[in-house]
Amino acid sequence: MFSTRSLTRSLRPLVSVRLFSTTHPCLGRAVVYTENGDPTSVLQILSYPPIPATPPPNSLNIKYLLSPINPADINVIEGVYPSKPTRTDSLGNSSGLGSEGHPVFIGGNEGLAEVTAVGQGADGMYKVGDWVVVTKQQSGTWMSERNIPAPDVARVPGGRAALTEAAGATLTVNPPTAYNMLHDFVKLEAGDWVIQNGANSAVGQAVIQIAAAEGYKTINLVRNRDNIDRLKDQLTKLGATHVLTYDDLTDKSTRDKIKQWTGGKPIRLGLNCVGGKETTLMARYLGQDAHLVSYGAMSKQPLSLPTSLFIFKNLTANGFWQSQWYKTRPSQERDKLMQKLVGYINAGKLQTPDHEILHITGNLSDEEATSAVREAFKKLSEGRYGKKILLKVD
Amino acid sequence: MFSTRSLTRSLRPLVSVRLFSTTHPCLGRAVVYTENGDPTSVLQILSYPPIPATPPPNSLNIKYLLSPINPADINVIEGVYPSKPTRTDSLGNSSGLGSEGHPVFIGGNEGLAEVTAVGQGADGMYKVGDWVVVTKQQSGTWMSERNIPAPDVARVPGGRAALTEAAGATLTVNPPTAYNMLHDFVKLEAGDWVIQNGANSAVGQAVIQIAAAEGYKTINLVRNRDNIDRLKDQLTKLGATHVLTYDDLTDKSTRDKIKQWTGGKPIRLGLNCVGGKETTLMARYLGQDAHLVSYGAMSKQPLSLPTSLFIFKNLTANGFWQSQWYKTRPSQERDKLMQKLVGYINAGKLQTPDHEILHITGNLSDEEATSAVREAFKKLSEGRYGKKILLKVD
Repeated sequence: MFSTRSLTRSLRPLVSVRLFSTTHPCLGRAVVYTENGDPTSVLQILSYPPIPATPPPNSLNIKYLLSPINPADINVIEGVYPSKPTRTDSLGNSSGLGSEGHPVFIGGNEGLAEVTAVGQGADGMYKVGDWVVVTKQQSGTWMSERNIPAPDVARVPGGRAALTEAAGATLTVNPPTAYNMLHDFVKLEAGDWVIQNGANSAVGQAVIQIAAAEGYKTINLVRNRDNIDRLKDQLTKLGATHVLTYDDLTDKSTRDKIKQWTGGKPIRLGLNCVGGKETTLMARYLGQDAHLVSYGAMSKQPLSLPTSLFIFKNLTANGFWQSQWYKTRPSQERDKLMQKLVGYINAGKLQTPDHEILHITGNLSDEEATSAVREAFKKLSEGRYGKKILLKVD
Repeated sequence: MFSTRSLTRSLRPLVSVRLFSTTHPCLGRAVVYTENGDPTSVLQILSYPPIPATPPPNSLNIKYLLSPINPADINVIEGVYPSKPTRTDSLGNSSGLGSEGHPVFIGGNEGLAEVTAVGQGADGMYKVGDWVVVTKQQSGTWMSERNIPAPDVARVPGGRAALTEAAGATLTVNPPTAYNMLHDFVKLEAGDWVIQNGANSAVGQAVIQIAAAEGYKTINLVRNRDNIDRLKDQLTKLGATHVLTYDDLTDKSTRDKIKQWTGGKPIRLGLNCVGGKETTLMARYLGQDAHLVSYGAMSKQPLSLPTSLFIFKNLTANGFWQSQWYKTRPSQERDKLMQKLVGYINAGKLQTPDHEILHITGNLSDEEATSAVREAFKKLSEGRYGKKILLKVD
């Protein structure tokens, strides 16, 4: 065991090759916290006894395969996100933590899991080995296994035969956000134009690819930077019709340029994850009866729009939140969406984002694993990961 | 004639008692301009020959009774309004002005008229003596008589028997704006709450009254002022449930106060004609899934809203423009709206706004009438009218 452990560490600290769990063959483990705060101080690893082998009716036992660490997860841990997790006291750790009287929060919102046992009533819908993604918001996904009500998940069509674990794990938040924003507000037809800012964000890249797959043209706005041509190339390869910088928008010639591209066709959908003056500029390029849909505010500046756009161009400003979508739509619609997205992935039209796997291997003690997780969040807060981090907890 | 003229002037300069036209028994007159600019320099009175007694098919001859001068009319004359009138060359003045080669703009957007002759094809819908309001935007209403396509007007149900001329003349813009904003965005039910700023504007007062008539509760925001209690009383008498100042919104206790009033029921509709920070403050009082509908920007400041309201509270920001409504809705819907509003007026539920009649009497020469109109616009631009001005051109 010692040798395995040192091998893991020397090969790739924190981001290990997949290992078999050796020290805790039966225990589960979860990344938990008891109070809101800085993840690098409040997160800890908690082991818990195996879950009962037979799930209660209408529920599933699942084993998490990979769970992303998304920027919003950090805000949740800090306690500044509007959607709050509830504490659980069902982990039943021997120390008492996670048990009655000492409930804990489990981190994570998005996660891919495999069904390991199916409760009565859910057996028509699921079977052992199925892949599912958690659609209930803030249910806690940074853990190894749990029992979960069947309505809290959606099946990943095709499962392991259709997708990589990384593709499945990143399927629930960003691609659906992109897909739904492209469909829920404006009835677009092939050849129609969409403009978006923050185009190199995870959602932005999904927008580019899904739009290209459906025949919509995209004007993609990004921050200017030293290697801007590299970024433009990268987004163009994904399917971006045009890429501009926010600086370009202040240039008078851009209006003519865009008019030439679109042939004067009004742009009826704008997607915004930035806010502030970059978005005010973008909104001026929208045509009559357009929708400006906001799903983020990276600039931390409010959305500031001339009232005349609302009155005289009949602009509508909307917001989009995928968590709310899952909450309010029936499961058939969720399943249909998954089907659609898996289809795009299988057809090579939707790439899995660049990622790195943070593997909390079974051979680490809870204390060692806690250090490893906190270290990863430190790196994350310093912006030292350039990619999406996917957590795997043995 | 002379004595009549001096009588008019000595009694009430510009705002005369109604007189019979004596000097131009057959000519029409219109307030026109040839170039955009300051109304006090570009407006002039133009006489034109009588219109043909038999209207072309599907058209009406109408005689204007009263036409409001609205703030937006000034912007139109200045050329800064998004909706532009087209020049006409059909007035055929003997000087050549208003004829081919010398077209003019006719001022005015809103107007009440009486049908004086009905063209073939329109005789099923209209008869002589009917009252109509012009619903086609920027068609020019500051004139005595004209021929007009039947689809450009809507009948005023009941006509002279049901309404005063002032009530009819102020029926097309403000009350419909209020009515439609209360109905087109959120399905309100009796007991539901609406919040609005600029509550003492003409539209704001119509909102208060129509909301009260339909059983909706209103929270009405106004600027603080010396005689605030008088204004509060006035709005309360119209049917306002509560009146607050913008300053009150920054007071922490106001949130609790509003919560107590509404019993915690979310406010799902906000109406805005102000913009700027007053509107940002108001938006924070809106509940989940609310609509913020803008129809004006009196502060000349943009609408600035935290993106989180859109994403996490599913706020939708819309604009409303009554001109666009008329343009896009079928005539049956326009007639139904008129019916509804006249019903409220007859029931004493919707008051005619405070107004003053500016009567361009027939005994004034074109030059004298031009001076009178320009003088009125000077007074208007200096804010010396406290009321709505209704123009009557003989």
